[in-house]
Amino acid sequence: MTTPRGRAAHRSPIPDHCFTQIQQRVGVADTDLMGIVHHSNYVRYFENGRLEYMRRRGLPYKLMVDRGMHMPVVELGIRYRRPASFDDLLCITTRIGALSRVTVRFDYDVSRIEPAADPRDKLLEGHVLLACVDGRNRPRALPDDFVEGLFAPEAAHS
Amino acid sequence: MTTPRGRAAHRSPIPDHCFTQIQQRVGVADTDLMGIVHHSNYVRYFENGRLEYMRRRGLPYKLMVDRGMHMPVVELGIRYRRPASFDDLLCITTRIGALSRVTVRFDYDVSRIEPAADPRDKLLEGHVLLACVDGRNRPRALPDDFVEGLFAPEAAHS
Amino acid sequence: MTTPRGRAAHRSPIPDHCFTQIQQRVGVADTDLMGIVHHSNYVRYFENGRLEYMRRRGLPYKLMVDRGMHMPVVELGIRYRRPASFDDLLCITTRIGALSRVTVRFDYDVSRIEPAADPRDKLLEGHVLLACVDGRNRPRALPDDFVEGLFAPEAAHS
Amino acid sequence: MTTPRGRAAHRSPIPDHCFTQIQQRVGVADTDLMGIVHHSNYVRYFENGRLEYMRRRGLPYKLMVDRGMHMPVVELGIRYRRPASFDDLLCITTRIGALSRVTVRFDYDVSRIEPAADPRDKLLEGHVLLACVDGRNRPRALPDDFVEGLFAPEAAHS
Repeated sequence: MTTPRGRAAHRSPIPDHCFTQIQQRVGVADTDLMGIVHHSNYVRYFENGRLEYMRRRGLPYKLMVDRGMHMPVVELGIRYRRPASFDDLLCITTRIGALSRVTVRFDYDVSRIEPAADPRDKLLEGHVLLACVDGRNRPRALPDDFVEGLFAPEAAHS
Repeated sequence: MTTPRGRAAHRSPIPDHCFTQIQQRVGVADTDLMGIVHHSNYVRYFENGRLEYMRRRGLPYKLMVDRGMHMPVVELGIRYRRPASFDDLLCITTRIGALSRVTVRFDYDVSRIEPAADPRDKLLEGHVLLACVDGRNRPRALPDDFVEGLFAPEAAHS
Repeated sequence: MTTPRGRAAHRSPIPDHCFTQIQQRVGVADTDLMGIVHHSNYVRYFENGRLEYMRRRGLPYKLMVDRGMHMPVVELGIRYRRPASFDDLLCITTRIGALSRVTVRFDYDVSRIEPAADPRDKLLEGHVLLACVDGRNRPRALPDDFVEGLFAPEAAHS
Repeated sequence: MTTPRGRAAHRSPIPDHCFTQIQQRVGVADTDLMGIVHHSNYVRYFENGRLEYMRRRGLPYKLMVDRGMHMPVVELGIRYRRPASFDDLLCITTRIGALSRVTVRFDYDVSRIEPAADPRDKLLEGHVLLACVDGRNRPRALPDDFVEGLFAPEAAHS
């Protein structure tokens, strides 16, 4: 109960500061013949969001890779509500949704910054569940320092 | 009740022939630093599957586009079970999962053909829900001939 | 000779301020099984670079689209010298290389910001030639205000 | 001069049978807001073409990877002549363009099969130069069996 691992697993609910926002500009390559962002591209936007979530907490995902560990996606869900268009500036919000010994769930929502919009107007929500594995694809407990990082507030960033 | 639309809407359950299988070879561009198919690429594989589903029933999606209609994805879900690797030959199975007046749900599973594998070993399952809209993004009933096509068996193909 | 068009066409050489630099962080999705950025992704980085080039000069490409014009790529060339890896922070430099009545060439080089590197170490160079066309894909002269924008220095940006 | 390596290096010109054609159907994800194939996607089509070139000669690229070797792209060039649209069926022709001790150049052209078109109407041409490297990114001579495979005719394929 006194280890970082124990503290993290029992912390409930997830602290309010456990979110990170990034901006994503929609390029031509992201659109399709409907003139909107192709639905597959949000999966990449989500990845950008959680990579930045970790980076701003001093534990970039690269550190996991350098230790021979990976966090493959084991579940993905998206509800698309409104389309985004070329040149829109989007806000991708990444939150910790849940944590187990081996897995972490990131919850997402996407809203539009430009053209000016009501920030409560969500374009879509989604979630991604990742599992920690070693180099042979066997489940591994999330490292303690990684769990601590997940629960930390953002450090200042440029 | 005697229209194609009525027949389709009330047909229950979905006929067993309502599936299409395509092969998908994993390219280098599809992999990531883990050496496996990046999870975002299955979304594209799914799209290939449902485009072929329609094409083999004589109603290619292009026909919808030419009529000024689109079928944006409104929901996406994937459960990843096992990774696929570079050069694997995959089988993408696309089935009709459900149909309403405006929406159609396609259910997917992905298995490995090469290297030789037990065909019951699923790599992943997923679903995509599409809604029929007009050029102004307003919901529209699925055209009758499209619904008939969805319920038809595959025509022979090369 | 007194029109903006004439001035632009005859301006020689291209002013030194005709460049824009953006940062590009390498995501997992950008890598391949070699653990490096897949060569196709630089084409997308280049696009991000030239979209920002125009945006910082007050004439976003969206303005062209809204006028019913497009600038399809008619030529692309890249010389890859060193690989980039996951999580690298890259600098994409976009310069005007040449201008004709209908076409504009953007020249690119990519260097690494993080991990810290000698900024003169280029990872790659490339160029993209774009042609101005109307909605029916017929060649059109680049609009005067667009040409002026291409030759302008960057406005301040956040 | 009597080794396979020597024979290959001196064979001139490249035999006429050194080409492979694959079909590529254009999906929605491949298009952009112009309604045409985004120029970056041809780079992926090219890769599909050369992977199939090797596979049909009994030396899949995976064999190189399994030996700890890679063939990163060191040069890429494309001339785009006509656009391709959603649902078009394209023919990607891959030819050996040149061979040195360490590098191989593949030359490409892309034509349209559907909608029915004059097969001589090229949509674009391009080339890719690859260099053989080991796991530490050091140049290595192309393996003899690989060179032999490059010069062989296609085996029958399904």
